[in-house]
Amino acid sequence: MAKDMTLLWGSGSPPCWRVQIALEEKNLQGYNQKLLSFEKGEHKSKEVLEINPRGQLPAFKHGKIILNESYAACLYLENQFKSQGTQLIPEGAAEVGLMYQLIFEAQPLAQKIGEVLYYNWKVPEGERHDSAVQRNKEALKEEMKIWEGHLQGCGDFLVGKSFSLADVIIFPVFAYFIRNGGSEERYPNVAAYYKKLRDRPSIKKTWPPTWIDGPGMGTLKDI
Amino acid sequence: MAKDMTLLWGSGSPPCWRVQIALEEKNLQGYNQKLLSFEKGEHKSKEVLEINPRGQLPAFKHGKIILNESYAACLYLENQFKSQGTQLIPEGAAEVGLMYQLIFEAQPLAQKIGEVLYYNWKVPEGERHDSAVQRNKEALKEEMKIWEGHLQGCGDFLVGKSFSLADVIIFPVFAYFIRNGGSEERYPNVAAYYKKLRDRPSIKKTWPPTWIDGPGMGTLKDI
Repeated sequence: MAKDMTLLWGSGSPPCWRVQIALEEKNLQGYNQKLLSFEKGEHKSKEVLEINPRGQLPAFKHGKIILNESYAACLYLENQFKSQGTQLIPEGAAEVGLMYQLIFEAQPLAQKIGEVLYYNWKVPEGERHDSAVQRNKEALKEEMKIWEGHLQGCGDFLVGKSFSLADVIIFPVFAYFIRNGGSEERYPNVAAYYKKLRDRPSIKKTWPPTWIDGPGMGTLKDI
Repeated sequence: MAKDMTLLWGSGSPPCWRVQIALEEKNLQGYNQKLLSFEKGEHKSKEVLEINPRGQLPAFKHGKIILNESYAACLYLENQFKSQGTQLIPEGAAEVGLMYQLIFEAQPLAQKIGEVLYYNWKVPEGERHDSAVQRNKEALKEEMKIWEGHLQGCGDFLVGKSFSLADVIIFPVFAYFIRNGGSEERYPNVAAYYKKLRDRPSIKKTWPPTWIDGPGMGTLKDI
């Protein structure tokens, strides 16, 4: 059904995962795929660079059409397969507006998680400062509080009464937060949302394989 | 026509500008608007915080629907006013795919420009390193080279033969680069694209007022 699509992906990457969820929701199973290892540097391999010259995963193509940015891939799939599988853009103006607003507010959230998790990887040794580490943690705590507010009174889904692009895009970010030790107690609304959606078929089927055997590193435990 | 819309904006901010361009293209003139000053800290004022609790501009609402993230606002306006004004999402799959891919690749571009321009503002004095400044500049140069490649053989617009969301979203970023001293000689494809679009009515009408009297600071001149 989706034999003209190819996805190169890495386990545990929210950007990769959301493309996988979108493909499932749009009934686009059967695409070509390959799991690559970030640890082994396979995201810089020739086969990735041929699709994604930035050397990042996901690297995704539909025929000759390249969609390496995960948001782009999700929006494209919904645009091209509107009437297939789950309708991922809601009908009402209020729901459409909230959906778009949330998916773009999720970008600072993901960025702040990354700034805490990857500080030592991003910042050369001689440029590291405890004050910066502390500031990044505080910024992530503030961001998580904003999301606790967004999720106050949230039903089964982030927007209205049905699963939408907001869930496709944002669920993997919360799952990533929790996987890396983020507190379910301090952010109960986030945790409740996470628990409601984690067994949805599209999500369960694409759960990062490296997350199945044993716990994460706990790096975010004091957030 | 658009009396139920309110935009609080700052001059010279690509996120604000793209919302203004989208509103013009969708024939949504006549909205309530207020120009605020970043220098005076007006983006942290009560009237902004009431719409945008993050204290950022743009702060935009349509009735009770809040769209503060500029990408969200542009996508929402196109979704809600599809058949009004310029059609901002193209028809063909290849064009749709390229459009989405480009608008999300513009996020690292804008981020890298910001990391060079605002280093001293973002990084406390005791944490600054010349090596980081240099690395940020090199990263922006590499990013600009990618865009020179993307624009090779580009016609009047970023995607296909018509103006699209890619132009709405990305033109202000290139204009910002050039306004801040970015080289038109080293990036001739970017400069050619900029010159082709700068007199488009929606763009000319919304040109940042603080850019009209005199040149910018030239901070990006060695990029």
